[in-house]
Amino acid sequence: MTDSAAPSPDPEAAEALADRVRDGDLRFHELEDHADADTATAARRLLVGEQSGASLDAVGDYAFPAEQADPNIENMIGAAQIPMGVVGPVTINVEETSTSNQGAAHSGDDGGALSGEHYLPLATTEGALLASVNRGLSVVDAAGGARARVTKSGMTRAPVFSVADVVEAEALVSWVRDNEPALKEAAEETTSHGELLDVTPYVVGNSVFLRFRYDTKDAMGMNMATIATQAACDVVEGETTASLVALSGNLCTDKKPAAINAVEGRGRSVTADVTIPRKVVEDRLHTTPEAIAEINTRKNLVGSAKAGSLGFNAHVANVVAAMFLATGQDAAQVVEGSNAITTAEVQSGDLYVSVSLASLEVGTVGGGTKLPTQAEGLDIIGVRGSGDPAGANADALAEAIAVGSLAGELSLLAALGSRHLSSAHEELGR
Amino acid sequence: MTDSAAPSPDPEAAEALADRVRDGDLRFHELEDHADADTATAARRLLVGEQSGASLDAVGDYAFPAEQADPNIENMIGAAQIPMGVVGPVTINVEETSTSNQGAAHSGDDGGALSGEHYLPLATTEGALLASVNRGLSVVDAAGGARARVTKSGMTRAPVFSVADVVEAEALVSWVRDNEPALKEAAEETTSHGELLDVTPYVVGNSVFLRFRYDTKDAMGMNMATIATQAACDVVEGETTASLVALSGNLCTDKKPAAINAVEGRGRSVTADVTIPRKVVEDRLHTTPEAIAEINTRKNLVGSAKAGSLGFNAHVANVVAAMFLATGQDAAQVVEGSNAITTAEVQSGDLYVSVSLASLEVGTVGGGTKLPTQAEGLDIIGVRGSGDPAGANADALAEAIAVGSLAGELSLLAALGSRHLSSAHEELGR
Amino acid sequence: MTDSAAPSPDPEAAEALADRVRDGDLRFHELEDHADADTATAARRLLVGEQSGASLDAVGDYAFPAEQADPNIENMIGAAQIPMGVVGPVTINVEETSTSNQGAAHSGDDGGALSGEHYLPLATTEGALLASVNRGLSVVDAAGGARARVTKSGMTRAPVFSVADVVEAEALVSWVRDNEPALKEAAEETTSHGELLDVTPYVVGNSVFLRFRYDTKDAMGMNMATIATQAACDVVEGETTASLVALSGNLCTDKKPAAINAVEGRGRSVTADVTIPRKVVEDRLHTTPEAIAEINTRKNLVGSAKAGSLGFNAHVANVVAAMFLATGQDAAQVVEGSNAITTAEVQSGDLYVSVSLASLEVGTVGGGTKLPTQAEGLDIIGVRGSGDPAGANADALAEAIAVGSLAGELSLLAALGSRHLSSAHEELGR
Amino acid sequence: MTDSAAPSPDPEAAEALADRVRDGDLRFHELEDHADADTATAARRLLVGEQSGASLDAVGDYAFPAEQADPNIENMIGAAQIPMGVVGPVTINVEETSTSNQGAAHSGDDGGALSGEHYLPLATTEGALLASVNRGLSVVDAAGGARARVTKSGMTRAPVFSVADVVEAEALVSWVRDNEPALKEAAEETTSHGELLDVTPYVVGNSVFLRFRYDTKDAMGMNMATIATQAACDVVEGETTASLVALSGNLCTDKKPAAINAVEGRGRSVTADVTIPRKVVEDRLHTTPEAIAEINTRKNLVGSAKAGSLGFNAHVANVVAAMFLATGQDAAQVVEGSNAITTAEVQSGDLYVSVSLASLEVGTVGGGTKLPTQAEGLDIIGVRGSGDPAGANADALAEAIAVGSLAGELSLLAALGSRHLSSAHEELGR
Repeated sequence: MTDSAAPSPDPEAAEALADRVRDGDLRFHELEDHADADTATAARRLLVGEQSGASLDAVGDYAFPAEQADPNIENMIGAAQIPMGVVGPVTINVEETSTSNQGAAHSGDDGGALSGEHYLPLATTEGALLASVNRGLSVVDAAGGARARVTKSGMTRAPVFSVADVVEAEALVSWVRDNEPALKEAAEETTSHGELLDVTPYVVGNSVFLRFRYDTKDAMGMNMATIATQAACDVVEGETTASLVALSGNLCTDKKPAAINAVEGRGRSVTADVTIPRKVVEDRLHTTPEAIAEINTRKNLVGSAKAGSLGFNAHVANVVAAMFLATGQDAAQVVEGSNAITTAEVQSGDLYVSVSLASLEVGTVGGGTKLPTQAEGLDIIGVRGSGDPAGANADALAEAIAVGSLAGELSLLAALGSRHLSSAHEELGR
Repeated sequence: MTDSAAPSPDPEAAEALADRVRDGDLRFHELEDHADADTATAARRLLVGEQSGASLDAVGDYAFPAEQADPNIENMIGAAQIPMGVVGPVTINVEETSTSNQGAAHSGDDGGALSGEHYLPLATTEGALLASVNRGLSVVDAAGGARARVTKSGMTRAPVFSVADVVEAEALVSWVRDNEPALKEAAEETTSHGELLDVTPYVVGNSVFLRFRYDTKDAMGMNMATIATQAACDVVEGETTASLVALSGNLCTDKKPAAINAVEGRGRSVTADVTIPRKVVEDRLHTTPEAIAEINTRKNLVGSAKAGSLGFNAHVANVVAAMFLATGQDAAQVVEGSNAITTAEVQSGDLYVSVSLASLEVGTVGGGTKLPTQAEGLDIIGVRGSGDPAGANADALAEAIAVGSLAGELSLLAALGSRHLSSAHEELGR
Repeated sequence: MTDSAAPSPDPEAAEALADRVRDGDLRFHELEDHADADTATAARRLLVGEQSGASLDAVGDYAFPAEQADPNIENMIGAAQIPMGVVGPVTINVEETSTSNQGAAHSGDDGGALSGEHYLPLATTEGALLASVNRGLSVVDAAGGARARVTKSGMTRAPVFSVADVVEAEALVSWVRDNEPALKEAAEETTSHGELLDVTPYVVGNSVFLRFRYDTKDAMGMNMATIATQAACDVVEGETTASLVALSGNLCTDKKPAAINAVEGRGRSVTADVTIPRKVVEDRLHTTPEAIAEINTRKNLVGSAKAGSLGFNAHVANVVAAMFLATGQDAAQVVEGSNAITTAEVQSGDLYVSVSLASLEVGTVGGGTKLPTQAEGLDIIGVRGSGDPAGANADALAEAIAVGSLAGELSLLAALGSRHLSSAHEELGR
Repeated sequence: MTDSAAPSPDPEAAEALADRVRDGDLRFHELEDHADADTATAARRLLVGEQSGASLDAVGDYAFPAEQADPNIENMIGAAQIPMGVVGPVTINVEETSTSNQGAAHSGDDGGALSGEHYLPLATTEGALLASVNRGLSVVDAAGGARARVTKSGMTRAPVFSVADVVEAEALVSWVRDNEPALKEAAEETTSHGELLDVTPYVVGNSVFLRFRYDTKDAMGMNMATIATQAACDVVEGETTASLVALSGNLCTDKKPAAINAVEGRGRSVTADVTIPRKVVEDRLHTTPEAIAEINTRKNLVGSAKAGSLGFNAHVANVVAAMFLATGQDAAQVVEGSNAITTAEVQSGDLYVSVSLASLEVGTVGGGTKLPTQAEGLDIIGVRGSGDPAGANADALAEAIAVGSLAGELSLLAALGSRHLSSAHEELGR
């Protein structure tokens, strides 16, 4: 807020540009071709304000050169500003003998990708959320920290082909099984980093869906997967009678709540867990392991079962959304992030809690991660850019989100138990 | 960006405040009690930067007084800035004889809550999204504009109670049916605006879930519903043997993908549709009504069916997420927003396309809607604050989001048909 | 088996009839118009045997006059014989002070529809199933018997209409809400027993689904609901612009696994439960309440959650299928019968177990209930024909099936705990 | 019915046996140890009749020696008799140049497992069902017959293990990937025919599910899979820290409606389809390809989507249930059989219809297939016993059921189109 480096567009240039649109000389979406990006956004604010009566001063008061957002948006008028805060610090994946406290993101046979003490950044407008997660993290920390692991990984894209009938469908399935190397070669020619892991065929009548799964390293990878799959589809169309109907046939599944993701995963499948001594539960959460286990069963398991849900948790989506916004992830992919299962059980009198997110699509390169505030969000966790080895930073980010989710679950379960949800909101909320 | 009214915290004051935390004199989350909100965020940036090594200049360069975000976040360090743009303008709910072009939000027997020409604001980091939606809107506009209607409305909260056994469960169900007026009275005493519409009981063993449904007018209403339901639960506990286990038993269902929302709705159930002349489809989208209908069937219906999905659409979540961020909605509720079904059919040679969002939870008062950039986002559509009659603005916002979603679906279906998804991303994307 | 009253068709008459088919004089499905039903089935066995090479002696050795099956089948050739056995007797809905032991089916404010001691009939080819259920029932009985209650009831049929667009869809929804009495009148004119309980509209684009829910008393009621709904649809089509597309629009939902049934119920929603003293669990099941609760959570709750399931139980479908076959229910409706949730918890050291079946469609009149062996199956429980009051027998049958399911769950959970599933099958199985 | 070979138990011996139970000398389930099986069933009928007041003559009039049902049931009292009929004959998998008309079950690269003309046996109490399927088959036949293919195959069993935490969970996943050969060896030692195809791990917190998939040839294979998996679990427990909680962890998924089966299949994934000339649709079904396609979309796709269904079809379960009963399959597995998707589209003016059943668990050896009436049911299709090669008969049975389902769908869609559902039931129904 102090000394912003953001450029100040010339009001007169903006007005002149807006005039050219009013005169029908330029089109609304072409302004960047005729002025610098900040002037273009200023001109658009004039035009939109005029049409709608809205003042757009706050929207226009963004803190980065508009051209930096060029790959992320079109028809830009400014920025939405979402309050960002931090929770923690929390200890993650540190064995009792460890002396590290600064934290590091790495990947190895013997540990998680993230370790040490970390603050977690959250951007949200949901009052009481950070307070709740923070309370959970402090309890997790008091218990020695959380464990977290990525147990499965792969970005998917599933085109749908049409064939004449089931005879051709069966033939295509056989062909794919016999020709996976050719598909792999074609797909990987389009990418320097990505690897095709496998291709799974599904048949419904004369539609054949091929689900391609890729290792996309530190990128969330949807674009990489899309482009590589297009190349593979060209091979399929060239060598078989199948005709491509859509490069995404909805078995990917991107940005829709789908069982295929909950079952098979997409992006990272990641689990965080913690064992909390009974005394900590009682002293810090003012409830018991038994009460939390019972609430989890009745609400998160039985209640979600009765609701026909794919999300067996309390509010994982809150943490996923807030950490996605703070780190430049795709907000629409919060949908799959909530394919999560929370468990709670009493173990020798202590409380074991876990959260398993089946399909968390995250990246530390590309997309929104390069924007200034989001890049700083990644820096808070220490996972900006490419990891070493490749993929380790995205794994670490997934683990961080899982730990944040774990804390959110723990805190809300405890709050529900203490029947303080409403009053917590009354105090802290909107 | 020009002359920001945002306060500049005193660096020395921030450093002093940070020192008190380092010294153990103050706790990290208590800073607002000892300094103005902007100085507190500055102090936190110092502490977090120190621990993580992150520079937080961009995060700190937000455009509003931090105290304005007080009800929305705790442990604030600044703001995430998400690029915002607009699409449109598009004509909504205007009959052919209408001469209005300025747009208005109103509610009546004979029309939708939103009408006229409107720009739609989207905040996103997903490159190519606005270009895609804009293309869809221009085609919708060329077809005379979109229709949109809210067909069901109600915010829900579903506590879970434990009882001794199914005999008591059945008795509780009977009691609730006989005592709905008492529950309504207790619930409505907590709110000046909200109305309890109905209570539906569900039994699983010795757990009884009561799903309370409210008219929360222009508020998204989850807090209102939570507080009112707590009051009703007190009555239930006072008058029956049931014991409240959790104020939310996951049949609400909030922020999880659940069939109960897809079937029965939550927030607004809203549909937008449009009929596009064949010539417009061919000239503007370079495909045919038949091709779009076929793609929709194979991808959005059959593909989603095979995926075990609750979302029978292409990418509704993209538009819902981007408009939620631009207008101060709860990003975690994008999850339910993607419980949407897209249909496409050929009608007398023309193309009919619809999108039905079952559970779109939106508000134009409260929550994040009061933040400066988000309030301006609402102003762009003309739906900031309370509507007349109450609820009309939130209805209008729901219709606007449905129309944006419709355009996104139309555009992507056409793009898939034209096999340009990859190349569109290559040109415009990341 | 001893002195069968089944008629013996004249072989020569059957041969003559078959000849007329061979000669093209008669069609295969018309035989009942030209001979008694048993001769017709004999002629068909000749023709089918000739075409396929199959001997059909056993199929032809059925134990009832073929004309008795006339409303149940066409192109009859005989009968499939499924082994039938009994489990129990088990005490149901008897308070400790009760002295009844003969059993009765009744309905009242203060109790379940079924009470007393009952054998339960099961027809199956699944070895070890009856032994397993029987073991469970004996434990239930040792615990004082099971409780069971129907908590919701109603047979549904949901036609789908097409309308021009969402404007008309909204108008139709309003019309239905205003005209439910007219729909009720039209529907109930077609039936002497059925009552229309409510009509719920659902909108997807230009499709409007109306879910009609009926009290069909002791009939399973699908035909009654279909015929009544057709009459109501005539009113809708006569008074509005809507056009009926299909009398069933799949929101009923009949014979498909659907969340709408799991959430809202169809037929009977019924729960059975029991509390088993720890000592009984240990002595009779050789395991502990804690072990059973843990298995239930990991398998029936967490496992089913991960599987994207609508059935949160171990093998309820086994008991439902076997009791359906033994009592003349519709075997295809086993599909919805498995929309069941099993819970198990430790209560003060004892074991509480429940099974809640959301959508159990049963009847004691009509359909297959009139066939001789099936009618005897109903007699074993004491629920043949119409109940007093009407509906009480079907309620009682639902409770009996729930209790059988409860015993099956209990037994299998215990067996899994004891790791004897495989060996149990090896001893008793196929 | 003519000259039954079924034994006639001696009434006096039965009475004497019953007396010993009444005297407490014998237990109800031990009777087969003290008399021949038929006398035992007779004694039980006496006891059950006495307790319930039911006459059990029809139940006792079964047509096979009771000892033949020994592996299929315990506590036998007789048999349920379900009317059986046939539909067809229908031509399956016959190319235009084929001259075969007798039919054969075989498996090869170039064709389906079933070919030629076949009657299909159905056992049901659902009036109008056979008439409906028969009408569909006659139309399929008029179109040159149906195509059918098994596109995926494998019986699954998925035990659940508990581990200490996610660190151990990840280690177990790695161990399984490295040790699949050892698991295969252990599993296959228990079976002469079965082959372990693959093992897929799934992690939820400290629960690890391993889904074992087997080729079980002509057996439905659940017992084979269970026993083999137990052996593999012994290896897992011996070599790792994991502890087996339940041999079935519900990710199998057996007898519950679950997305994992709909997505990944279980038993046979099989599709049948047909292309019907427009003239045949118009002349025989009195409707149009366009009408059938529209009904299928609104009802089977959009309606099922809105219902939160896993079954996107009209009434596949009816045919599956009836053919299961007629051929000795497990009636409880009808649940998964209804995980089916029906598609209908207009192709160059003609009608293409398909049905894809994702998880059809069938066998032609073992289980109920050996019972006399059921074995004859298999003979009607020509698929009794082991196929050549092994598995071909079960494949052929799956194809036959798929074709029957296709005909049922086609007929009901046409009937709905013609709005004759109610009247068809009124004429033919119950």
